[in-house]
Amino acid sequence: MLKPTSELGSMACPISVERYPTVTLAHGDGGRLTHELIEGVFHRAFGNTHLHRAHDGAVVDVPGRRVAFTTDSYVVRPLFFPGGDIGSLAVHGTVNDLAMCGARPRYLSASFLLEEGFSMETLWRVVRSMAAAAEAADVEVVTGDTKVVDHGKGDGVYINTAGVGVLEHDVDIHPGAVGDGDVVLLSGDPGRHGLAVLTAREELSFEHEISSDAASVAEPVLGLLAAGLEVHCLRDITRGGLATGLVEIAETAGVSIEIEEKAVPVTPVVRGGCELLGLDPLYLASEGRFVAVVAEADAGAALQVMRGYEISRDAQRIGRVLRDPRSGVCLRTALGTSRVLERLAGASLPRIC
Amino acid sequence: MLKPTSELGSMACPISVERYPTVTLAHGDGGRLTHELIEGVFHRAFGNTHLHRAHDGAVVDVPGRRVAFTTDSYVVRPLFFPGGDIGSLAVHGTVNDLAMCGARPRYLSASFLLEEGFSMETLWRVVRSMAAAAEAADVEVVTGDTKVVDHGKGDGVYINTAGVGVLEHDVDIHPGAVGDGDVVLLSGDPGRHGLAVLTAREELSFEHEISSDAASVAEPVLGLLAAGLEVHCLRDITRGGLATGLVEIAETAGVSIEIEEKAVPVTPVVRGGCELLGLDPLYLASEGRFVAVVAEADAGAALQVMRGYEISRDAQRIGRVLRDPRSGVCLRTALGTSRVLERLAGASLPRIC
Repeated sequence: MLKPTSELGSMACPISVERYPTVTLAHGDGGRLTHELIEGVFHRAFGNTHLHRAHDGAVVDVPGRRVAFTTDSYVVRPLFFPGGDIGSLAVHGTVNDLAMCGARPRYLSASFLLEEGFSMETLWRVVRSMAAAAEAADVEVVTGDTKVVDHGKGDGVYINTAGVGVLEHDVDIHPGAVGDGDVVLLSGDPGRHGLAVLTAREELSFEHEISSDAASVAEPVLGLLAAGLEVHCLRDITRGGLATGLVEIAETAGVSIEIEEKAVPVTPVVRGGCELLGLDPLYLASEGRFVAVVAEADAGAALQVMRGYEISRDAQRIGRVLRDPRSGVCLRTALGTSRVLERLAGASLPRIC
Repeated sequence: MLKPTSELGSMACPISVERYPTVTLAHGDGGRLTHELIEGVFHRAFGNTHLHRAHDGAVVDVPGRRVAFTTDSYVVRPLFFPGGDIGSLAVHGTVNDLAMCGARPRYLSASFLLEEGFSMETLWRVVRSMAAAAEAADVEVVTGDTKVVDHGKGDGVYINTAGVGVLEHDVDIHPGAVGDGDVVLLSGDPGRHGLAVLTAREELSFEHEISSDAASVAEPVLGLLAAGLEVHCLRDITRGGLATGLVEIAETAGVSIEIEEKAVPVTPVVRGGCELLGLDPLYLASEGRFVAVVAEADAGAALQVMRGYEISRDAQRIGRVLRDPRSGVCLRTALGTSRVLERLAGASLPRIC
């Protein structure tokens, strides 16, 4: 390891920005400059023995016979927003997808799609942020790739991360496992990520800055599993928000889910922002919030476990799964009326992750 | 499984191209249209039980305690070229990186980065080609992601695939394992992929069409391992070509590699094309060729195994590893002179993979 991540601090870009102020096409042709970029920037930030073997892939140990495998590409704009950036998001998003499978996140890949002319300093800032997020989430970036596309054929930087996690418990967590009588828990206030990115993009300002909730939720998930609680489904509520996530679970499981609007802990700041902008907080993305659908008998214990972790200290019981031939999601409003929630449609907020 | 891949044939696009002739931003917002795209196009093509669980990732069985993990993004232009397209390439490239670790390729992820306005028909054609390549290579696409970026911020479609393979043999194959006396084998004629893409991009025409060599090389690799031969390093000779691949091995291993120019089986068509265009075939990318560095005692047997597979029937012994404190690659030319090979530098051929 060249340098432990935590020592990167605010270290200056290891590539001479006088010589290469921006990324050039030759940084992606597989030759000398590609080598300098990989060694100077990526290996410096993510340094570990896997990367330093300079091989086409990494060979990693997986105790246990089952692994979780997931992927996500990140295209968020702006690259930096209150509470995060494309680099930290690319770690948290994929770590969380592994956690949603009931796995301990272990290894990430990182593939950078760079546009000719992208600032080398900004790239370094993004990569440093990724390295810090990976260290905090206790995962290693073990393999990667770099491509450069012509100016005008990209947008600075896009990042893909794939992830491998290890199933340590004999669990089978997926939407189809949800059943009648289950209880729906939400790990915290929804919607801050989507609103933070949107306000940063549009340069809106509110009295209170809205900061993204993006973070790893692996710890409370592993806590639930270690406690032996009967978790049927986990879902991080990213694109499409809480409402779309619940609709997907309900349709896949063929069940009906009833949510109490007043139990969903939307913060006053998010509620106010949504009212001003005409948005519905139930459809705004979070990147550090998840839904756990658990057996009714374990709901109280599960809530207690979740509240024991800082990231999910405001967890709430928000609804339940009902026997109903019409699969779908029904919201019982604060006024006592009901409305059916559909998937997000129409008013889209593109590129929030 | 909705439909086995092999039955896709030339099936028309499952999404109504009258309604959606092109990809829209809303296809990437996580809502209704995203769902239709995933179900209609990706699940239809890649259909398997993992995808149909509609979960954030796949949980897969891995017999054995070690897995190989790799990633690559594909930005090749044009999207279609003689012998392949971005979809088949995205499968072969990642399958081959797993094979280079000595692993049996098993599972792929597929992440699509689509530009608003990209033709839905063309997307379907690419996805169908990916599915066929995955079936031929005996790997499953078990998890995926779709993002859409604004018109002008992408280039139609970029694809990332990550891969997981299983180590079935107790091997430790990587550049650092190369040592004095080892023999360098090349699995076939180099450079056709790079030249095929370049001629398609520039709309050049030669007397004989040059077709990409892109294909899975997993079979001969697994054959070498099953035969118990002492394989020290494997490297597919993609970006930067044979020369750059060998330089990377030599530098990582701290050895010198001597190559006989006349033993490298460059075809007359590639040689002629390179002469016309002023290119060096040793620096042209292949996507279905690999170098195997093996123990001297096993070189003959290894060559025999490789020649037993169609994809590597023209395998040749091209050089050897020497004790020499100056690590690097030396080419002994047909004229009896020597020249040092460096990494690709300068005359770059961007976006060939």
